[in-house]
Amino acid sequence: MHSRLKALTDPIAPVDASLVPAIQARLDDLTKPQGSLGRMEELALRLALIQGGGKPQADPAALFTCAGDHGVAQEGVSLFPQEVTRQMVLNFMGGGAGINVLARQAGAELVVVDAGCAGPDFPEHPGLVRAKVAPGTQNMAKGPAMTIEQCLQALELGASLASQAAGRGVRVIGTGDMGIANTTPSTALYCAFLDLTPEAVAGPGTGLAPEAVSRKARVIETCLAVNREAVASGDPLAILAALGGYEIACIAGLILGGAANRQAVLVDGFISTAACVAAMRMAPAVKDYCFFSHASAEPGHKAVMRALDANPLLDLGLRLGEGTGAALALMLLRASAAVLNEMATFSQAGVSRQDG
Amino acid sequence: MHSRLKALTDPIAPVDASLVPAIQARLDDLTKPQGSLGRMEELALRLALIQGGGKPQADPAALFTCAGDHGVAQEGVSLFPQEVTRQMVLNFMGGGAGINVLARQAGAELVVVDAGCAGPDFPEHPGLVRAKVAPGTQNMAKGPAMTIEQCLQALELGASLASQAAGRGVRVIGTGDMGIANTTPSTALYCAFLDLTPEAVAGPGTGLAPEAVSRKARVIETCLAVNREAVASGDPLAILAALGGYEIACIAGLILGGAANRQAVLVDGFISTAACVAAMRMAPAVKDYCFFSHASAEPGHKAVMRALDANPLLDLGLRLGEGTGAALALMLLRASAAVLNEMATFSQAGVSRQDG
Repeated sequence: MHSRLKALTDPIAPVDASLVPAIQARLDDLTKPQGSLGRMEELALRLALIQGGGKPQADPAALFTCAGDHGVAQEGVSLFPQEVTRQMVLNFMGGGAGINVLARQAGAELVVVDAGCAGPDFPEHPGLVRAKVAPGTQNMAKGPAMTIEQCLQALELGASLASQAAGRGVRVIGTGDMGIANTTPSTALYCAFLDLTPEAVAGPGTGLAPEAVSRKARVIETCLAVNREAVASGDPLAILAALGGYEIACIAGLILGGAANRQAVLVDGFISTAACVAAMRMAPAVKDYCFFSHASAEPGHKAVMRALDANPLLDLGLRLGEGTGAALALMLLRASAAVLNEMATFSQAGVSRQDG
Repeated sequence: MHSRLKALTDPIAPVDASLVPAIQARLDDLTKPQGSLGRMEELALRLALIQGGGKPQADPAALFTCAGDHGVAQEGVSLFPQEVTRQMVLNFMGGGAGINVLARQAGAELVVVDAGCAGPDFPEHPGLVRAKVAPGTQNMAKGPAMTIEQCLQALELGASLASQAAGRGVRVIGTGDMGIANTTPSTALYCAFLDLTPEAVAGPGTGLAPEAVSRKARVIETCLAVNREAVASGDPLAILAALGGYEIACIAGLILGGAANRQAVLVDGFISTAACVAAMRMAPAVKDYCFFSHASAEPGHKAVMRALDANPLLDLGLRLGEGTGAALALMLLRASAAVLNEMATFSQAGVSRQDG
């Protein structure tokens, strides 16, 4: 493993499973039939484990919307023109995008990251991290999207953002993306990492018609063929560099950094999950820190969840990205922590336990 | 129809579907790919319709946890002893139950209603409505659970609570239940209203073993046979009186009253949905006002949702009742309203629309 990647993955340790019985006993002592709060109990248990026992806390929380552009957009794989990435970053700065609304609703700080948008640097803004590795990736239908060096820079950017957040007390981070055409690199990553086919995973993204989806699948086949050496190497860094994007690598870095800092990580939908798969290949223990927020409406996400044996929390037909699913999942995670911390026990409340 | 029931149902009108295109156009003008916020958009649209257009508002919101006891508990259909209903009402007053925690998380007022708990009146408490129709129902395995008069009183109680809430500005109400053994009357109501069988719907409730579930199904068969005249009449008031309970009728009244007052109604899980089915039989237009909050872990709920062609919002394996699923759904409803009210439009944000 590359020494700079090793520096990111070495601090990641699995959670301490020996804490499970004590946390489970607390959950079972609360005034409710055992297990009757279902996945809320699972969330509370996992958050407590991540935080090393004690009372789990979902606050403060920060959502990171990472933006980047994609050379492969030249292949006509998206319904929206590439300038929309930049326009949407400006919309994030103006507070008018979906993630702005939902971050406010969820009571989370929103950090927007220019990891690699096309065009010049954005004007300074307190909610924007200006850390462009390059102004968009190369066209991965013709060669690797990024060099190894560029990919490492984007990973290190994400990891440092998680560490900085930890430094100001952030306990839960959520991931999000903005990047026109980025379902294409995400799909390519799923194919490379999970041995899925472009036909099984490619979908309409922001709204392609069926013929255009087929064309997109063929573009992804080309990308995989052109980058076959990286794919065949099995090296997650080489694969991410060849088929990823700056915002995707930044999200992968956030996930690695979050796990290293014992933060819970709410993974958004289709794009963020691709980043998560890359991060899990780099450091399998990150899975203990990750929560799959929602089932994306992008049809291939189902196959991906099956391949990961994952059961996302919400299924609301979302396909916006930006971290919107992570913002909604944060509400559930916070409520779950409150259940464990605030409910009365049977003895405190003088409630009888079940008969027999 | 009984004149007192007619007084509850007459004011209920369907929403004005002619408002749909204008609301949909607003949703489609927001800076996101069309439809990409999935069911959040459906929620915003429906809430705006309920409120007659304009900016939908989910606040103030109130959750009603309605409690009652059941004569059929004598048949051994629950794992918990009957006194737990009373103990849990006291737990609600103490603030230590699941619904207390989740109502706080959801930013909703919590109103607990003694619609018909066994035992003496509860001590006065600001969060408790003391409106016991009777100290528990009769055993419906031996005759009707309630008289028509008692059932009407419980319906009127619920409707008046919705109206009082409307009077203090409440725009969204959530339903919840507490009543040991109340999956049994709920199952009987599903069988009577939806032509399902006790075997298809009866489940473990708070945790019965499989043999006990079979016994419970046989008890429900007996209840349906003993009350066959009411069932055969098809009269929803007679059926609810025969096979319901005070908290269930109170919830049905809340739903009727909510619809009459143009409030959105978040219907909790297995018990509340049984009340909702009764209310929909009494006034079909209530369906425009109801949101099915979550897929209960009680296995029969799936068959019920199928029979109603309903797709609940959340699927978190909850089976606690009390309104806990409604509280979580409120967070989604509020976030949906914010999306419609606060997101920027394409022209405001200077974002390009899709190509072609």
